[in-house]
Amino acid sequence: MTRYGFVGLGIMGNAMATNLLKAGFQVTVWNRNPSRCDSLAALGAQVAESPRETAAASDVTFAMLSDPAASLEVCFGSEGVLRGIRPGCGYIESSTIDAATSRSISEAVKKQGGRYLEAPVSGSKKPAEDGALIFLAAGDESLYQETAAAFDAMGKKHLFLGEVGQGARMKLVINMILGGMMATFCEGLALGEKSGLDGGLILEILDAGAAANPMFRVKGAPMLKGEFPASFPLKHMQKDMHLALACGDELGLPLHCTATANEIYKQARAAGSEDEDFSAIFQVIKQR
Amino acid sequence: MTRYGFVGLGIMGNAMATNLLKAGFQVTVWNRNPSRCDSLAALGAQVAESPRETAAASDVTFAMLSDPAASLEVCFGSEGVLRGIRPGCGYIESSTIDAATSRSISEAVKKQGGRYLEAPVSGSKKPAEDGALIFLAAGDESLYQETAAAFDAMGKKHLFLGEVGQGARMKLVINMILGGMMATFCEGLALGEKSGLDGGLILEILDAGAAANPMFRVKGAPMLKGEFPASFPLKHMQKDMHLALACGDELGLPLHCTATANEIYKQARAAGSEDEDFSAIFQVIKQR
Amino acid sequence: MTRYGFVGLGIMGNAMATNLLKAGFQVTVWNRNPSRCDSLAALGAQVAESPRETAAASDVTFAMLSDPAASLEVCFGSEGVLRGIRPGCGYIESSTIDAATSRSISEAVKKQGGRYLEAPVSGSKKPAEDGALIFLAAGDESLYQETAAAFDAMGKKHLFLGEVGQGARMKLVINMILGGMMATFCEGLALGEKSGLDGGLILEILDAGAAANPMFRVKGAPMLKGEFPASFPLKHMQKDMHLALACGDELGLPLHCTATANEIYKQARAAGSEDEDFSAIFQVIKQR
Amino acid sequence: MTRYGFVGLGIMGNAMATNLLKAGFQVTVWNRNPSRCDSLAALGAQVAESPRETAAASDVTFAMLSDPAASLEVCFGSEGVLRGIRPGCGYIESSTIDAATSRSISEAVKKQGGRYLEAPVSGSKKPAEDGALIFLAAGDESLYQETAAAFDAMGKKHLFLGEVGQGARMKLVINMILGGMMATFCEGLALGEKSGLDGGLILEILDAGAAANPMFRVKGAPMLKGEFPASFPLKHMQKDMHLALACGDELGLPLHCTATANEIYKQARAAGSEDEDFSAIFQVIKQR
Repeated sequence: MTRYGFVGLGIMGNAMATNLLKAGFQVTVWNRNPSRCDSLAALGAQVAESPRETAAASDVTFAMLSDPAASLEVCFGSEGVLRGIRPGCGYIESSTIDAATSRSISEAVKKQGGRYLEAPVSGSKKPAEDGALIFLAAGDESLYQETAAAFDAMGKKHLFLGEVGQGARMKLVINMILGGMMATFCEGLALGEKSGLDGGLILEILDAGAAANPMFRVKGAPMLKGEFPASFPLKHMQKDMHLALACGDELGLPLHCTATANEIYKQARAAGSEDEDFSAIFQVIKQR
Repeated sequence: MTRYGFVGLGIMGNAMATNLLKAGFQVTVWNRNPSRCDSLAALGAQVAESPRETAAASDVTFAMLSDPAASLEVCFGSEGVLRGIRPGCGYIESSTIDAATSRSISEAVKKQGGRYLEAPVSGSKKPAEDGALIFLAAGDESLYQETAAAFDAMGKKHLFLGEVGQGARMKLVINMILGGMMATFCEGLALGEKSGLDGGLILEILDAGAAANPMFRVKGAPMLKGEFPASFPLKHMQKDMHLALACGDELGLPLHCTATANEIYKQARAAGSEDEDFSAIFQVIKQR
Repeated sequence: MTRYGFVGLGIMGNAMATNLLKAGFQVTVWNRNPSRCDSLAALGAQVAESPRETAAASDVTFAMLSDPAASLEVCFGSEGVLRGIRPGCGYIESSTIDAATSRSISEAVKKQGGRYLEAPVSGSKKPAEDGALIFLAAGDESLYQETAAAFDAMGKKHLFLGEVGQGARMKLVINMILGGMMATFCEGLALGEKSGLDGGLILEILDAGAAANPMFRVKGAPMLKGEFPASFPLKHMQKDMHLALACGDELGLPLHCTATANEIYKQARAAGSEDEDFSAIFQVIKQR
Repeated sequence: MTRYGFVGLGIMGNAMATNLLKAGFQVTVWNRNPSRCDSLAALGAQVAESPRETAAASDVTFAMLSDPAASLEVCFGSEGVLRGIRPGCGYIESSTIDAATSRSISEAVKKQGGRYLEAPVSGSKKPAEDGALIFLAAGDESLYQETAAAFDAMGKKHLFLGEVGQGARMKLVINMILGGMMATFCEGLALGEKSGLDGGLILEILDAGAAANPMFRVKGAPMLKGEFPASFPLKHMQKDMHLALACGDELGLPLHCTATANEIYKQARAAGSEDEDFSAIFQVIKQR
């Protein structure tokens, strides 16, 4: 049976590793702050001293880290994954990293005889806990196939998208659509409320029609109350809008709506909402 | 038991009157081209010679006409509803008309002692046939309350929104959100496809996440094939975007995303897509 | 020698009639508030009791009124121009009026045997006083030719643009370019100042290069000081941007930059700057 | 008397060095392709074998190179300026380079005991030949003061803007205003021509009013004929718009008009106009 490793046990990683263990897999875990390992050890996880040790003890190691710098350190560091990975073993990066970082890790892993997959996820805290993430995988297809059972334990869907970089790109496309939809939603709500319509009724009617979607359903009511608890921080959404525009730039594709929405997200950041949920652009759109 | 009248038996009106009859109501119908009455007569409808006669025979008369001019003619004409309506009886306009037209009909009906409700619908052919429309009612609340059973026969939801004009406005808000979402969706699909991602997979991932909605689900696959069968014609969507902007103008509310999307709809109209479905803006966004 | 009439002696009209008189023309004047005629009488003008009397005493009558309603009243009223105009005589509307109003006046004048020219002006108070206006004429070309000397007395340039309506349209094109340039100028100034550059130096460098123009030169320094004395009120500029977009709509021409700038002008109106100069959009662009 | 060096003798550099020589200065020149030195030698220039030799022979050395990579090579290369510059001598970069490149050169020069100034220019071929450039200097103010006579020989204006990076930033602000003005100008011309107005008359009227500027004057007539000979290539303008937006991003300043115009420039690049003059966006705006 495949032995799994998991490095990075933040909000997302902890929930994901928990689901792997609950599904009956053998899992070795590591986290910079080791106290995050306790709940997993209680579920039967082995606790390693380093990324190197984790990779050495595992057939396939998952990483779920906070940013590209952490990904590079965990991979290339003196006690990093590259020092422990054995030929034929797999390394799966689920952190949200740019294509260039992903490619440099991919090349280093392959040079050691390992196999690499990028597998960023669509979904945040709640789907991670519920085993309802969507994995956007790209890279080594054989590794993807062999890891199906683990993806099933942590997610409701997993897809193979081709060469390294395509997983990151798909995530960008999904996020820019979410970002644009939110901006449009806010303009509609603002116009409705200024027209004297009840915001709650607007939400109810939207939810009964062709536009009905989980995002409007979950975020709409708090937005009307001026509450924007961060599920996906506004500054991250603005960064993704920016990256999508840069990608369109490279490909010669004008993206008028995305460019317009991006400026509004920038305005919201400047107005101090960068750490609030991205739905906080409602505040600048309705002009408070 | 309330006797209903129904004037205007186009695609929408015919389906709606059919559902009224199937629910066991007594219905008198009229249509400019009388052959459209046959299927309803077969279900037990009385066929009237004019809007006047329809109103005279009914406690509550519904109208479902193609445009404001038809609504004015059916109401004010020499054989119009105003000549037949009796004190206390109701007239319900479900046609999509502007607030000014709605108000002038409202005043005339009240002058005759009648009661008036505007009740535009959210939903097109399929929901009309399935009895799944959403009625956005405004005007006389007592009439709204008394008509609940008829709304239930034709729709899945009905709401009372206040004074005449608010129904029309709510419809505008819903449509501008649909229009903006579509533009954003097209930009995401275009960027994804240009990046080498499979359009079908983009749809699949969207449909598994927070943005999942019936519009993307139903229209997405045909769009990728370059098919845009008119469910809601692009020229009507552009008109609604324009009206929403005019409304924002009046209220002093800038609507950057809506303004940008409106220009793209105009571009699509100029490119010859005005009678195609509004999803045909995909063509100008992906630059064919 | 041609005898001129002049109705409407506001800031613009008074300056224009003064220049006619100074050039040696014989002029009959009228104004709703007759005290505005005094300075002109001192220069030799005949003062009439009504628009009718003005037209009756003149070969060619100019009108410079505040809005379309005033233009209609002065033309069609019981003591209006139409009652006084004689066959072959000319009526020249320099007020800023829409094409429809201009056409209805044109038809009425022609029905009386008169000749009509619309001749809106580019330029405001200062150019009016300096005899430096630009006349954008359209309608009766023979009248245009015969009036050359009067145009020369009041302006530095006059052009014949074709049929009635083209003068109004040209003015719209000029104004939308001014409006868009101002928005761009504000964004550049705002970015420069936020970057720590001296606003005065930005103006100086602009004025030495390919973008150098009178508008930036005259309005730039007050803008940096937060001063926006109304030369052309912001609400009028926003209305012109809106009309330009409506015109593009009709012709199937998307105008992305104009649409974006229009939303910013709307935002400035909502923020209370509607009666300030249109350069006051600087305030919303730099986010105060 | 100050001895000047000049490295990089392309279209701009050649014209600038020529003006230095004509003003009577002693100048040592170098160019990668030495044949470009001939005309300058004929005017009395010393020809050096390398940037190192140029700097060694000069009190103040100017550089005018094609891009940041060339600037880095000429400064840091094995025969570069750094190897030749003596304590107290000056190095002035007039190439258009980003702030980061400028700062790294600045630090290296200062480490050698030299003084550094960035001095990008506003103006292209014609102003370079006419000695009508505008120098946007930043860095070592004493060097700026001492070089006044050289700036006067090559330009009509020179300004000191503060610390290294502010010259580059000022250039960006100027260019983004030019880029936005051009987009607005194109929308106005397109709307006018679609309305049946004569393009030449629009230019004439603009040139007589508050918007009159050299850019519209010089580029307008060729644009109407569909001619876009590259004075400033569209791809460079789009890059500058992009950099301005990135700068606004950093500073938390939304730039709606610039973002919109940038998307149109991207559209024009995708349509194949990247090496034409930036006025070629007229083609996508008028939809050919």
